[in-house]
Amino acid sequence: RQYRIALIPGDGIGTEVVDAAWQVLAAAAARHGFALAAEAFPWSCAHYLAHGRMMDADGLERLSAFDAILLGAVGWPATVPDSVSLHGLLLPIRKAFDLYVNARPHRLLPGVRGPLRAEDFDLLVIRENTEGEYSGAGGRVHVGTPHEVAVETSIFTRRGVERVLRHGFEQARRRSGRLASVTKSNAQKHTMVFWDEVTEQLAAEYADVQCTRYHVDAIAARLITHPASLDVVVASNLFGDILTDIGAAIQGGLGFAASANVNPGGGVPGMFEPVHGSAPDIAGRGLANPLATIWAGALMLEHLGEAAAGAAIIAAMEAVTGAGRVATPDMGGRASTAEVAAAVAAALADG
Amino acid sequence: RQYRIALIPGDGIGTEVVDAAWQVLAAAAARHGFALAAEAFPWSCAHYLAHGRMMDADGLERLSAFDAILLGAVGWPATVPDSVSLHGLLLPIRKAFDLYVNARPHRLLPGVRGPLRAEDFDLLVIRENTEGEYSGAGGRVHVGTPHEVAVETSIFTRRGVERVLRHGFEQARRRSGRLASVTKSNAQKHTMVFWDEVTEQLAAEYADVQCTRYHVDAIAARLITHPASLDVVVASNLFGDILTDIGAAIQGGLGFAASANVNPGGGVPGMFEPVHGSAPDIAGRGLANPLATIWAGALMLEHLGEAAAGAAIIAAMEAVTGAGRVATPDMGGRASTAEVAAAVAAALADG
Ligand SMILES: CC(C)[C@H](C(=O)O)[C@@H](O)C(=O)O
Ligand SMILES: CC(C)[C@H](C(=O)O)[C@@H](O)C(=O)O
Repeated sequence: RQYRIALIPGDGIGTEVVDAAWQVLAAAAARHGFALAAEAFPWSCAHYLAHGRMMDADGLERLSAFDAILLGAVGWPATVPDSVSLHGLLLPIRKAFDLYVNARPHRLLPGVRGPLRAEDFDLLVIRENTEGEYSGAGGRVHVGTPHEVAVETSIFTRRGVERVLRHGFEQARRRSGRLASVTKSNAQKHTMVFWDEVTEQLAAEYADVQCTRYHVDAIAARLITHPASLDVVVASNLFGDILTDIGAAIQGGLGFAASANVNPGGGVPGMFEPVHGSAPDIAGRGLANPLATIWAGALMLEHLGEAAAGAAIIAAMEAVTGAGRVATPDMGGRASTAEVAAAVAAALADG
Repeated sequence: RQYRIALIPGDGIGTEVVDAAWQVLAAAAARHGFALAAEAFPWSCAHYLAHGRMMDADGLERLSAFDAILLGAVGWPATVPDSVSLHGLLLPIRKAFDLYVNARPHRLLPGVRGPLRAEDFDLLVIRENTEGEYSGAGGRVHVGTPHEVAVETSIFTRRGVERVLRHGFEQARRRSGRLASVTKSNAQKHTMVFWDEVTEQLAAEYADVQCTRYHVDAIAARLITHPASLDVVVASNLFGDILTDIGAAIQGGLGFAASANVNPGGGVPGMFEPVHGSAPDIAGRGLANPLATIWAGALMLEHLGEAAAGAAIIAAMEAVTGAGRVATPDMGGRASTAEVAAAVAAALADG
């Protein structure tokens, strides 16, 4: 078995964490008897400054030949506005391959101390990834005058809402049987009431799943006060973005949060990435926690059908965090990005 | 000095907490030498079911004659959809009186145990309250078909963004000198880039204030991981809604979170309310924590120019929570809504 992986390290700590995760993925492949062939793409803000584009014109076409994409981080706001870099690289990949499911697991790894007194939670947040509040539709009039008005339109389609909710119900069946559907239908009476309606229709179809509707403000609070009461959470693009940063926070920080962008059954490459960004403040110093990207790599292997290898990577991460000896500064240690990756790779070889 | 107060208890626990807060406000008035004249309005979901409207047709006109409005909670989703009840009562008051500042303080009262290990924070979130994501603009096509599309448009005006940010900069000057401005400009490139631009213009004008821009996902996480690093936070209608429920969560729950809806210098009645809703699950049983509404009452007195009385109410609340003897179930006690209010009123008389 051989898989072709496109690596897009991107900006800042993106290169460091992708390098680190690759060591672990290579070790997993060796141990589990498959091959990973990598090709790296230099698309980034530096690329933009040199070539006027975040990725090559045929970039999406070239990516389509791969089995999966592993991405580090996109963005370097000091030289390229985020609204340019993200709309030039990260967001087009999610949209072009119609990667409508953005799945993010949130739980505390052994030995990791979170900010909450509560420690016993295990969440899977499924975020709509192709439409909604990220449609990009909108504009501005009377620019620069006192009468300026800016508008931005969220666009939700029945196909878009239904397929991501359906994926959520399927996951809920596989996990606890509980699903939370998130809207703000008390204030946004067009799109969010629509989402609620689709939720109710699917809830009738999946009568075995216990489905609860939450407003985004209420579930944001609940993730802090009663995280263990939630299991699978399905939310729109924007709400999922916010809730998964909360998820990252309660699991000990962005250094741990991984993200799988996939189109289940779609025959397109999935894109796997850490939830964190390029972190200009610590870039290039070996300080970044590679576990989020390693975890994303595990999700990638799982998605490619190598579930045992994915599980082995997660067990190896757990062995390393549980032992607590090799840790980056955000975890309270002094080890480098590469040292943490090496420890996970070693645990994998032992495991 | 006499102030005319419109009471809108509304639905569910709204009536219980407004009754309770009124006891405390009456005690404060007696002690501080001013009079409060109340008129209660029965507008609610029950009113809607009886009369087909959440409030009377001349409701806003009648409210305009008051010095302030104290509101309990609006919503009873079992009989009236939230999208109807909120758009028929709460949201029109905020909009009709152009109450563009929604200010919400978040800190732990003495003796209150929050969900975070961190306890030392003192936040003032200022939320835009009249436009943005709550504009109500939008619609649906191909309703009920597989091709259905729903859209909702956020509308931001320069006047709207500038005035709420300006209020934030003024508050930051009065407090720590630090301001956080919240957008999602990396994904929403029309409205949120606009908000960032207005922030930068005001930051230049308020050079003595240290202004930091955050993405909403990042600041949601920061409120959990490093709440003490933040002070005044200014956000759009939707983002402020979410961030203040997080604020409520970290301050021990919605039972403590108060909200002032005001138009600084506008000569219109402000509207003061708890952040929580009608809580159908505990309504009518005397279980609701009245402190959020009592705190809202203190904010009301402050806004009316009775700062000493407002501060006295807060000190009385602190005396009660600090002693820990009289507490509703959410605070770990067995006292009723009325008993907690009576304890605060007694502490006020002693104070
Ligand atoms: C960088 C940004 C556009 C992105 C998002 O909001 O989707 C990120 O925050 C994420 O969560 O993947
Ligand atoms: C009830 C709802 C419409 C309201 C809001 O979102 O403004 C509430 O959550 C609040 O925070 O005041």
